[in-house]
Amino acid sequence: MHQLVLIRHGESTWNLENRFTGWTDVDLTPTGIAQAVAAGRLLRDEGWDFDLCYTSLLKRAIHTLWHVLDEMDRTWLPVVKDWRLNERHYGALQGLNKAEMARQYGDQQVLLWRRSYDVPPPALQPDDPRCERHDRRYAHLKPEQIPLTECLKDTVARVVPYWEQTIAPAVRAGQRVLVVAHGNSIRALIKHLDRISDTDIVGLNIPNGVPLVYEFDDALRPLGRRYLGDAAAVEAAAATLAQHSVSG
Amino acid sequence: MHQLVLIRHGESTWNLENRFTGWTDVDLTPTGIAQAVAAGRLLRDEGWDFDLCYTSLLKRAIHTLWHVLDEMDRTWLPVVKDWRLNERHYGALQGLNKAEMARQYGDQQVLLWRRSYDVPPPALQPDDPRCERHDRRYAHLKPEQIPLTECLKDTVARVVPYWEQTIAPAVRAGQRVLVVAHGNSIRALIKHLDRISDTDIVGLNIPNGVPLVYEFDDALRPLGRRYLGDAAAVEAAAATLAQHSVSG
Repeated sequence: MHQLVLIRHGESTWNLENRFTGWTDVDLTPTGIAQAVAAGRLLRDEGWDFDLCYTSLLKRAIHTLWHVLDEMDRTWLPVVKDWRLNERHYGALQGLNKAEMARQYGDQQVLLWRRSYDVPPPALQPDDPRCERHDRRYAHLKPEQIPLTECLKDTVARVVPYWEQTIAPAVRAGQRVLVVAHGNSIRALIKHLDRISDTDIVGLNIPNGVPLVYEFDDALRPLGRRYLGDAAAVEAAAATLAQHSVSG
Repeated sequence: MHQLVLIRHGESTWNLENRFTGWTDVDLTPTGIAQAVAAGRLLRDEGWDFDLCYTSLLKRAIHTLWHVLDEMDRTWLPVVKDWRLNERHYGALQGLNKAEMARQYGDQQVLLWRRSYDVPPPALQPDDPRCERHDRRYAHLKPEQIPLTECLKDTVARVVPYWEQTIAPAVRAGQRVLVVAHGNSIRALIKHLDRISDTDIVGLNIPNGVPLVYEFDDALRPLGRRYLGDAAAVEAAAATLAQHSVSG
């Protein structure tokens, strides 16, 4: 049997301020650090171990992984960082909070962007200082690979090939893989693995810092997914997210 | 022109207790963390940047690198961890402090092991709980690749091929490389790069957490090496090491 563990990064400063983050590189809050540490302890206490880790190019995910590895005494594990595990790009919404969005676009429109699978928010202008085409960490990509906005469908279109070409072969080869990523890059992967519909996937909320375990048969067909830890607490966290939080 | 920056990890708990550390995986002290943070700030303030990082499989080096990357806002850089950058293996001396060593082996003998290029300390027994053949992080190696003891010559014999086969090609290709390693793995590299004699290399002390810059011509011949930061402070740190510290 093959296994995979996914963790969404701990709470970030912009989760707390209710701002659309996307590719903006904000850090963890103290709560987010505590969530990451707790995830590492849980994995250690339940006897989990890994051979290989993947994360995004964003520090809220990287720091979450570092805390997990510290708690597991596994700082020496190989870590691969890739932009394709980044959060969904939120275009011109990046950096706006709920009130600013409502003023600029109206509540109904914002809800549409949050809840639809294939309608992207307005694109960033390439000369916008928020545009990641100026960011050295993406300089190895072709400009057209660096999104100016994404709907979830666009995120799926970069996450799934990365899964197929890079992560899945490692899992198939027997490597115990840990992926620390973002609400929407994890959603994209879950949609693919569990064949969730375009409609249902946008309602699936991923709590921060809770290890999500997949088990696969030899053909890498999922046998099931489950969160580790206190089931009631996990459910409460996801429900809170669904009610209050802007994703990302 | 090509460049390379080397950093010895910050002070570790066993540096502080004056114990031979070798491959024992002890962590940084608060002073060691401060040294790592200072190294990162210095590199940032002087405008240094990197494309690729290498470190060992030991947390005092990995944590030093993480602090440096945090200060430089470069957590997203690729990091390659390899056992060949580990500290010299100190065999049966690992874990002993000065007094214990003097009692077991006598001061003169210990001085010989510290000061000679090619006389290794007594080997660990493979069934010694300190032996790294039980450690999962080295499970991908052949048992005979995992040392039971090393003289500096043995360390050179694993560090130089790693330099030639892995790091040097990256530097030659124009990558700006940062290596965070250990007193003796850095000594081994300096010996090779600057063709330092077997006698002179054992007297060369590397201060903790001070960036050491190499510049090379296109054939990767060194044009010079220099420490960044306050020259007087660096010299004082190295002199203190030479007088008081057990290496490693």
